[in-house]
Amino acid sequence: MQLLEERIRKDGIVRAGNVLKVDSFLNHQMDIDLFNEMGKELFRLFGEDDVTKIVTIEASGIGIACVVAQYFNVPVVFAKKSESKNLDGDIYTSTVSSFTKNKVYDIRVSKKFLHKEDRILLIDDFLAKGNAMLGLLDICQQAGATVVGAGIAIEKGFQEGGELLRKRGLRIESLAIVDAMNEDGTIEFRPQ
Amino acid sequence: MQLLEERIRKDGIVRAGNVLKVDSFLNHQMDIDLFNEMGKELFRLFGEDDVTKIVTIEASGIGIACVVAQYFNVPVVFAKKSESKNLDGDIYTSTVSSFTKNKVYDIRVSKKFLHKEDRILLIDDFLAKGNAMLGLLDICQQAGATVVGAGIAIEKGFQEGGELLRKRGLRIESLAIVDAMNEDGTIEFRPQ
Repeated sequence: MQLLEERIRKDGIVRAGNVLKVDSFLNHQMDIDLFNEMGKELFRLFGEDDVTKIVTIEASGIGIACVVAQYFNVPVVFAKKSESKNLDGDIYTSTVSSFTKNKVYDIRVSKKFLHKEDRILLIDDFLAKGNAMLGLLDICQQAGATVVGAGIAIEKGFQEGGELLRKRGLRIESLAIVDAMNEDGTIEFRPQ
Repeated sequence: MQLLEERIRKDGIVRAGNVLKVDSFLNHQMDIDLFNEMGKELFRLFGEDDVTKIVTIEASGIGIACVVAQYFNVPVVFAKKSESKNLDGDIYTSTVSSFTKNKVYDIRVSKKFLHKEDRILLIDDFLAKGNAMLGLLDICQQAGATVVGAGIAIEKGFQEGGELLRKRGLRIESLAIVDAMNEDGTIEFRPQ
């Protein structure tokens, strides 16, 4: 998606350790017009797949998922990361390792909100090692739901998550795939 | 807002300890059509206030904030709750006690995204004791920004947050104010 690639080139900041900071428009401050363009593009890609629900993970996936959901006219469910008084009863859980936060945590979704009839589109801001996606896939599989694919804003193509998940048969549509981030701050995108 | 009150009556669940579960439409599964109606109502209420930015707090405020922001045509900034490799540099911080999660945590916003020229609308799903709002207010004050008010989905009118914040001069527009939750599961709303 050219608009997103241009925005990453313009406002993304490359940091040591393969960190790409896009906090001015994607995951701290959020450009809602850009999210709407991402929603149009994801609907172009998945609009024929009879999506019944969008599933994401807190926190930075939620904003994108909610704006994108308007094009599919479906509700959003977000997997919670922490224990809370308000999440009781029967839940699906899975364990996720976070590269960015350098820790392992549980994600949880109430069984009330995922059903075997559901056709799920997974949404997240980043795909790197793929751990968050594996956790969401695990939870959807526990529910017996169909995952039609994953819509990702930025995939780090030089990390293994995308290849791993595609080999497992997951359809992944990443709106921008970063193949390399160079020491001079330039970013190379995979042609799509 | 009648639509929200009706939805709370229909799908909200009253639990012991003054817990109101609205996880089927507000803060776990999210009804995006409802969020759009909330956006229209909040724009009716704050549309003349020259809002330049919406500020919320992760996680359950983010979805509402992003949908509401479309009516104001402004970006959203969400305060982060946890330390992360991706949030570096100069940040505003404040400390928040969570009633629901029974713990104290820091919230953080990058200084890059709040400026003294900003006119901020705060958004959150719940207002109870007001601690999250106090933390967001503190951060906006540190930035020298103007807070035009707070748009809240559900205020627990029997807890002290709303009164406390209004006494401090904050304009709060709560789309539904729950004045009592009874043992038989019925909910009393404050007439607005």
